[in-house]
Amino acid sequence: MKGTTLISPRQRAESGPSETPEPADALRAPDKSLGQSRVIIENISPCIDGGRFAAKRAVGDIVRVEADAFTDGHDKIAVALLYRTGDSGPWNEVDMQPLVNDRWFGEFPVYAVGLLQITVRAWLDHFGTWVYDLQKRVNAGQDVSTDLQIGAELLEEARAGNEGDVDKQLADFARIIRGPDKGQAVQTALNPLVQALMRRHAPRKFASEWGRPLPIWVDRTKARFSSWYEFFPRSAANDPSRHGTLNDVLNRLPYVAKMGFDTLYLPPIHPIGRQFRKGPNNNPQANPGDVGSPWAIGGPEGGHDAIHPQLGTMEDFDLLVRACSDHNIDLAMDLAFQCSPDHPYVKQHPEWFKHRPDGTIQYAENPPKKYQDIYPFDFECNDFHALWDELLRVTLHWVNHGVRVFRVDNPHTKPFPFWEWLIAEVKKEDPDVLFLAEAFTRPKIMYRLAKLGFTQSYTYFTWRNDPYGMREYLAELTREPIIDFFRPNFWPNTPDILPGYLQTDARAAHIVRAILAATLTANYGIYGPAFELMDNQPAAPGKEEYLDSEKYQLRQWDINSPNSLSDLLTRLNRIRREHPALQQDRTLTFHNTNNPTVLAFSKTSGSSAILVIANTDPYNTQWADVDVKLDVLGLPHDRPYQVHDLLTGARYRWQGWHNIVKLDPGSQPAHVFAVRKHVRSEHDFEYFL
Amino acid sequence: MKGTTLISPRQRAESGPSETPEPADALRAPDKSLGQSRVIIENISPCIDGGRFAAKRAVGDIVRVEADAFTDGHDKIAVALLYRTGDSGPWNEVDMQPLVNDRWFGEFPVYAVGLLQITVRAWLDHFGTWVYDLQKRVNAGQDVSTDLQIGAELLEEARAGNEGDVDKQLADFARIIRGPDKGQAVQTALNPLVQALMRRHAPRKFASEWGRPLPIWVDRTKARFSSWYEFFPRSAANDPSRHGTLNDVLNRLPYVAKMGFDTLYLPPIHPIGRQFRKGPNNNPQANPGDVGSPWAIGGPEGGHDAIHPQLGTMEDFDLLVRACSDHNIDLAMDLAFQCSPDHPYVKQHPEWFKHRPDGTIQYAENPPKKYQDIYPFDFECNDFHALWDELLRVTLHWVNHGVRVFRVDNPHTKPFPFWEWLIAEVKKEDPDVLFLAEAFTRPKIMYRLAKLGFTQSYTYFTWRNDPYGMREYLAELTREPIIDFFRPNFWPNTPDILPGYLQTDARAAHIVRAILAATLTANYGIYGPAFELMDNQPAAPGKEEYLDSEKYQLRQWDINSPNSLSDLLTRLNRIRREHPALQQDRTLTFHNTNNPTVLAFSKTSGSSAILVIANTDPYNTQWADVDVKLDVLGLPHDRPYQVHDLLTGARYRWQGWHNIVKLDPGSQPAHVFAVRKHVRSEHDFEYFL
Repeated sequence: MKGTTLISPRQRAESGPSETPEPADALRAPDKSLGQSRVIIENISPCIDGGRFAAKRAVGDIVRVEADAFTDGHDKIAVALLYRTGDSGPWNEVDMQPLVNDRWFGEFPVYAVGLLQITVRAWLDHFGTWVYDLQKRVNAGQDVSTDLQIGAELLEEARAGNEGDVDKQLADFARIIRGPDKGQAVQTALNPLVQALMRRHAPRKFASEWGRPLPIWVDRTKARFSSWYEFFPRSAANDPSRHGTLNDVLNRLPYVAKMGFDTLYLPPIHPIGRQFRKGPNNNPQANPGDVGSPWAIGGPEGGHDAIHPQLGTMEDFDLLVRACSDHNIDLAMDLAFQCSPDHPYVKQHPEWFKHRPDGTIQYAENPPKKYQDIYPFDFECNDFHALWDELLRVTLHWVNHGVRVFRVDNPHTKPFPFWEWLIAEVKKEDPDVLFLAEAFTRPKIMYRLAKLGFTQSYTYFTWRNDPYGMREYLAELTREPIIDFFRPNFWPNTPDILPGYLQTDARAAHIVRAILAATLTANYGIYGPAFELMDNQPAAPGKEEYLDSEKYQLRQWDINSPNSLSDLLTRLNRIRREHPALQQDRTLTFHNTNNPTVLAFSKTSGSSAILVIANTDPYNTQWADVDVKLDVLGLPHDRPYQVHDLLTGARYRWQGWHNIVKLDPGSQPAHVFAVRKHVRSEHDFEYFL
Repeated sequence: MKGTTLISPRQRAESGPSETPEPADALRAPDKSLGQSRVIIENISPCIDGGRFAAKRAVGDIVRVEADAFTDGHDKIAVALLYRTGDSGPWNEVDMQPLVNDRWFGEFPVYAVGLLQITVRAWLDHFGTWVYDLQKRVNAGQDVSTDLQIGAELLEEARAGNEGDVDKQLADFARIIRGPDKGQAVQTALNPLVQALMRRHAPRKFASEWGRPLPIWVDRTKARFSSWYEFFPRSAANDPSRHGTLNDVLNRLPYVAKMGFDTLYLPPIHPIGRQFRKGPNNNPQANPGDVGSPWAIGGPEGGHDAIHPQLGTMEDFDLLVRACSDHNIDLAMDLAFQCSPDHPYVKQHPEWFKHRPDGTIQYAENPPKKYQDIYPFDFECNDFHALWDELLRVTLHWVNHGVRVFRVDNPHTKPFPFWEWLIAEVKKEDPDVLFLAEAFTRPKIMYRLAKLGFTQSYTYFTWRNDPYGMREYLAELTREPIIDFFRPNFWPNTPDILPGYLQTDARAAHIVRAILAATLTANYGIYGPAFELMDNQPAAPGKEEYLDSEKYQLRQWDINSPNSLSDLLTRLNRIRREHPALQQDRTLTFHNTNNPTVLAFSKTSGSSAILVIANTDPYNTQWADVDVKLDVLGLPHDRPYQVHDLLTGARYRWQGWHNIVKLDPGSQPAHVFAVRKHVRSEHDFEYFL
């Protein structure tokens, strides 16, 4: 990493924030004792709520830090980015470079999961100022005799505290600059090597430093780039008359792996309550044999740390986790912290629930609706410490069985401090554990959950089906500071949500939504096999629930149907793996089209460039002029380039910003183009990079 | 003030942040002991750099505070704004009201100069939630017997800690709600009076609070609204052969007062150095009798606390301050912290200056330019404490002589910590003292000076002459948080700057710039009589300095010239005084025109609405279609309204958003319209409000 160096022991002693008594900075009023600290540091990024929360990055990222830094008068300043692993220990230092308008930046790569701290330190660069002025004096033909003496003094001053070669070099240069040969003196003074030596070894008197180190949490790469597949284990049996088991899930693993998904999320696998059990289609009256909702957790067989007997045993589970691992798949568990009336907690810990004056326990409500099959925890209860501890124990129970990913059900109905604590405690045990927040709620609540530690979040993508809505929403999600803490995970459907859009022309709608989910964001997921088999019958007209939802009954799926979109999903996941541009969200850029039903956007990463153009009208063929932002894609304005459709294999030679597309929802509602520059070889052979 | 109440002793005891042990808030990670505090508070405004600096307001303002506040689940919350005078003592409380998207606001008026603190406190409104749910249950015809018991329990719980009438009322309501008459119970529960009682007296368990109180500095009104006039005392003699005196300034006061200016700024009035004194037009060789630059401060007669003998005595100065006061004018002094080589400090405190290896003192430089008549202080010197103390002493010397406004010369060439300390120390002595920063430098430096305490700031207005540039610049200045700490003061000219625009058609350019300065911002100033007499000869073609600048020589001005713009200035200042819309900057709104040389903008305050339309082309008559934003001005779309040109007296009846103007720079380059609604009286008589 250019500019990254481990700093010398002396500088380390100077640069540790904890060792500096109360530096002047943007968070603290300077008192008179700090009056000589003249450099101001402001507005560091990434910085979430003044450092209250960690910014998020993933292994493999380059962390870019920016800050405003300036001083009074005309003196030059030196600005350094300091970073370290954890919250103590030695700092590493990177020179920061100026951008425009007194903004500086520095970068470093991250290789390991865990907490980092960053801060910025700046000081007056007296030697740099002197060199800069000397050059101007020399250019103007002024007598610089006295100025050379000043420079020599700066070099001599820098000798103090340095030894050996450095001391000798500084002394030598000082002697030359002070010496009789003015030409050689000036030449030496302006030598970049001397400046580099002084940058490293000159005293950093009266340095300023940002008030408190800012945290960055580095996740494993899956936090940034993941492909989720969800299905109901109990529907995984090929036999319609039989309750699926974890072994059936095991047998379906090759199907999931072949499509290229890397995260398999199973709805809750715990014992299911009896009292007030729901029948098919959310019928309040269940018949004997009805399987109930897996989110009504807890029965005589156990609670959140148990496995529903019809699914199998803990041994089956361990086997499944190992098999997933063999397929490079993470098994994601559901954390749904609520109880059925039959949950063991209800008797063992009645103090964790709210009691009504009539002696009953308060069930979940959204008046006038009643959810009598669910008892929420009372997080305001006096015994909340024990409740928190138990929920942590349950979570770690699954971590100890190899679970590294949790999808958290309705986190926005439990207190924020609880999640912040729980996630931090789990990460102390295993920093690789990731949490996906299923909070379909108001934006600031979703953002708070992300800030306090959730790795990824469900989003409003499910209902953003028109280009205008998607552009506006993604502009918000990719803006600082939101992009620094909120990682969107785009789902076109979930067991709870069959959006109206998918109820239109099934095939076209499912295809375009899959393509958009898989390319707009680096994290996406689908609920299958309902998705690839294009199940799109609503529970009732105008409703967004699935008819015969698996939430309340077993379903059978013909996963080998020739109509299945599994080939499309396979292709999309391969494109995502092969093109780094699609493995991050920071470079998302929209390109204008003259057709409000056609969305165009690109992502780039290094030499990888993807341009997606999608017709969001599921009924009609649409034409559009697409204004390609050539500069964003690194393309020349005056030469051809190639767009290679990774879905169909077709290649087109385009030139300039103005291009026309025609997209037929019946055959191909979207292009996913790899964009390649046109190059003429030295043998006059033309090809595309 | 609606919603403002002094809170009860009991609530005060609960609501003081210092009395609450470590609340959960946006700045501190909650530990487990705070797990029951479920309300989150984020993103308070006004808040400058996390509370490091005070937001600015002026006496007479309504302070509007906003914050995001929300909780998990579906419970209602109560949010309160707390504010107090100073940084200790009792808090006042204002109920905050919801806006959209989990944002809340509260307001209170400020009546006195000094520091305020604000914070936000929020808690779960269990009673409010209960009432809300009860209404829905009742609407759905559900049995609410048990729910009424819950409500009665909440009322009884609230009795604890209350006495007398309140206790009795709570007990009575609880009894009714628990009682046999369900109809009466429900009616009582839904009675807004009961809710108000509970809002005031129910326990506020597990309240959350913003981490640290945020400061607001309240200035006197002049900080927000001021009209500055600058002239050189030594040119104030009517006799061209004579050096003007403070008595001549006294004689010119009625002229300044008649034009309606409220702040008279005099360039430095201290003894002027001899060595390297500059001659006319910045000639490095002065002749005997040349008066030199008043910014080369200090001679044998004294330094920054002395008065130049040719101007008069301290007694003359005191007389002048009193006379200004009689005209309701503030005398603004120049604080230029630099020395001529003849300043007494040079001998008394050589340690305050930088010394070169050749034994000389370092003069000011911007290589290769040399300013040998100026010695800057060395603020990095070891004795800087004594230097700071002396500069404070000098400042307070003038405060003790009645000076309440300082224009600070080049504050950006002295350390930021120095200014923050000095301004705070002066305000301890007299909080009415105001400071105008003359920092024509890079934006972040200007903003930092404003944050650390400067009351007002010079700006780039001087060079923003086209509508595009002015719109862009003012959009920045009126955006949060900048508008909360940076108060722009618009000057079309200064003794240092004769912008190119004023060198075009003198009369048209001066008129339009005066109108824009006086109406775009509530604080403005001019350097006269050069301005009203339209002096616009540059020192050399392409230069922005005045020819024969008063900085280096005496000038004579025919202030009674019939060509003078003094009548225009008089009229503008009267318009500003009579129209509150022009006394603040927060409501500035630009209106689109179809002519890029024509600028249109409005300001409103209560019923006061001003619409300015200006032709910025000093040579040509321009027509423009103006798209009036009717909603911004509170105007109906379907009825006429009146625009009354306050400069000419002409009145026009307009209707709708589309209107056409014609502006001739030779006669009338701009309209300054008072906008009045059209009203039909009950006697069918039409008039304009």
